Amino acid sequence: MKADVLIHSASQILTLTGDPQRGSDLGKLGLIEDGAVAIGDEKILAVGSSAELRSAYQAEMEIDATNRVVLPGLVDPHTHLIWAGDRAAEFEMRVAGATYTEIMDAGGGIISTVHQTRAASVDALITQVQPRLRRMLAHGTTTAEVKTGYGLDTQTELRMLETILHLDKQGPMELAPTFLGAHAIPIEYSDRPDEYTNLVCDEMLPAVKEWWQQNAAGCQLPFVDVFCEAGAFNLDQSRRILERARTTGFPLKIHADEFNSLGGTGLAVELGATSADHLVYTTAEDILALGASDTVAVSLPCTPFGLAEEAYTPAKDFLQAGGILALATDLNPGTAWCESMQFAIALACRYMHLTPAQAIVAATINAAAAIGRADRVGSIQPGKQADLIILEAPDYRHLGYRFGTNLVTRTIKKGKIVYTQEEEEVL
Amino acid sequence: MKADVLIHSASQILTLTGDPQRGSDLGKLGLIEDGAVAIGDEKILAVGSSAELRSAYQAEMEIDATNRVVLPGLVDPHTHLIWAGDRAAEFEMRVAGATYTEIMDAGGGIISTVHQTRAASVDALITQVQPRLRRMLAHGTTTAEVKTGYGLDTQTELRMLETILHLDKQGPMELAPTFLGAHAIPIEYSDRPDEYTNLVCDEMLPAVKEWWQQNAAGCQLPFVDVFCEAGAFNLDQSRRILERARTTGFPLKIHADEFNSLGGTGLAVELGATSADHLVYTTAEDILALGASDTVAVSLPCTPFGLAEEAYTPAKDFLQAGGILALATDLNPGTAWCESMQFAIALACRYMHLTPAQAIVAATINAAAAIGRADRVGSIQPGKQADLIILEAPDYRHLGYRFGTNLVTRTIKKGKIVYTQEEEEVL
Repeated sequence: MKADVLIHSASQILTLTGDPQRGSDLGKLGLIEDGAVAIGDEKILAVGSSAELRSAYQAEMEIDATNRVVLPGLVDPHTHLIWAGDRAAEFEMRVAGATYTEIMDAGGGIISTVHQTRAASVDALITQVQPRLRRMLAHGTTTAEVKTGYGLDTQTELRMLETILHLDKQGPMELAPTFLGAHAIPIEYSDRPDEYTNLVCDEMLPAVKEWWQQNAAGCQLPFVDVFCEAGAFNLDQSRRILERARTTGFPLKIHADEFNSLGGTGLAVELGATSADHLVYTTAEDILALGASDTVAVSLPCTPFGLAEEAYTPAKDFLQAGGILALATDLNPGTAWCESMQFAIALACRYMHLTPAQAIVAATINAAAAIGRADRVGSIQPGKQADLIILEAPDYRHLGYRFGTNLVTRTIKKGKIVYTQEEEEVL
Repeated sequence: MKADVLIHSASQILTLTGDPQRGSDLGKLGLIEDGAVAIGDEKILAVGSSAELRSAYQAEMEIDATNRVVLPGLVDPHTHLIWAGDRAAEFEMRVAGATYTEIMDAGGGIISTVHQTRAASVDALITQVQPRLRRMLAHGTTTAEVKTGYGLDTQTELRMLETILHLDKQGPMELAPTFLGAHAIPIEYSDRPDEYTNLVCDEMLPAVKEWWQQNAAGCQLPFVDVFCEAGAFNLDQSRRILERARTTGFPLKIHADEFNSLGGTGLAVELGATSADHLVYTTAEDILALGASDTVAVSLPCTPFGLAEEAYTPAKDFLQAGGILALATDLNPGTAWCESMQFAIALACRYMHLTPAQAIVAATINAAAAIGRADRVGSIQPGKQADLIILEAPDYRHLGYRFGTNLVTRTIKKGKIVYTQEEEEVL
């Protein structure tokens, strides 16, 4: 049989075949030693032993993966990829001991990113986002969720959505869009959060739906997300937005329990949200509710790391409750400018006590479930997209064990090599 | 005037000119905006404004560093670069909750690395070390200290030294060797630590000196280092080894206060060691003594991170005492497989409360002082080696602020580009 690409002789192939993994089942890698993958027409044709596939397929390109691990492209199900400017000065103030108020007074915080993003055209946003997209691909992410939420007015929110759609069409990174008009209370509504909530419900949600139908007809509607947190949206405001979104036909997400527990996780379960994200201070009751539901628990360990906070998602509790656990970077300019899902894995092993195998499942098939795409990406399975990565390591446990660097030597998206860092290129 | 290379239009050049920086002086970057560096004959010819240098020099190669930061090549003054095998299985056991004893019983721990390193030839070691060297260069390290210490017998210790010398000669990475025969008590001496101490003093130190004189005549003797820690060498044993080493003419280093304070830091000061390293549990008295001395305090934040420990070097206390603070990775297969000094900087900002400027000084000119090479490397200063790096970032504070990825786009060693990751190469 013919194939476009045949990757062979991999010391390990992690297939991750099957459904997203719940609770104590988390960590089934579907490992094949001396494995091979055949790719054709942008899809996985077959996966199995090198001997078997090398005799069955004639490929235009062969990749020798001796001493290397092959696994599905990583899926990053929670990013704020699109922003203008940076907040390096604010970081410097923070590590020097400045308080939240001092940073705000100096013009820092999310509002400074909103200010810069409102002033940026679609082209300016694309120019600033490109290096981050390249960096994500280089670190093995082949599909990512991306949120709006640095506009906080209808016009800029739609411009962010337009930017996401443009970048997704351009490829090779596939982007799953999320409307996060309820990311923060904008400064012009600072004493009127309920009015801003009305604006999100009555103006933004209909505008997003209309814009989407005009510009992305036939594509699934974006997710609608709310930052349910002290200082952002309270439980009542979060409920109003998510209920309206659900009625309007949007799939749902929520930022819950990052610093305080306001009940957002229970709300997500009640409304059948696709995922609930952050989950650091979730109550025992909400952990049980989430564990019994199909809402994916998305943990963002780069955020406490970025802030040097001590508390991380109590992952073991979510697993004990039977939950579907996923990992994401939370890539954003304030708390976590980190494009690397490998680093999220390294943190999850150390601070959430996941084994490398559990963390890898949480970063692939379960992460795909967190954006409703587990049918297309997240595992190496015949018929699925040929999204995969090759590691400069002989054993999958090097993910987690090693940290602060990039172990990916090739990233393959829909059968095409989109990043390569071969040993020979250095020196 | 002629130059081999002219780097120009850098948004910032960090020159780091001057002496290693003590105490509250830490953080002087010598920043030049819209800066340029002229390189000739492997050395820095001049550094200044782009306008000035572009009119003064005609270069064979010009590098446009618009929107980029140029700084000295990073110096990593504490690594265990040379080892055979890996300890991924041990890492997996540890995150799954295995105790130290369970790991030892399963054949893990430093002794497993000793076992594999003893079995490896010089060629086998070189093959395994090459990818780590490339990764260090890719992440901006241009000079590194490297320890023996996975032999723990005279023959293997000398073989490790031979490997270091070979790799240093081969380049482009410059390596400063350290003899660490006193890294651990080998299993065959487990109940006779004093006898092993005798072996180090009476057999190994003379053998190292003799070997060195035969194989590296004219080069400065390697450092001699001791792991002064509960379970390794006590204060008396450490003193015996370091005093003998000093008498024999070796410059000194020490591993002190990583988990317990045994008095190793005070010993280092007393004996005029070049550096004392780890320094997590150092007593107030020893902090004052070190601060008043010329012994460099080398902090290794990747190690507590790797182990998910909460305690880091109390850097502010060392600075308040007037100490010379440096950063290193501690690259090793047990606790910190991390080749990136950028990640050590990101940790130091978050967990040791250094500003990015302070951490950068600690990773360049002060790190050079920690291996006695501040006269040759660690700053961009006419007459010094042309070791420098270019960041894909417009502001030096992106080091620290961003984490888990590599911001270096080019590494230049002695005037030659030895690593490049240009934007165009991705996608």
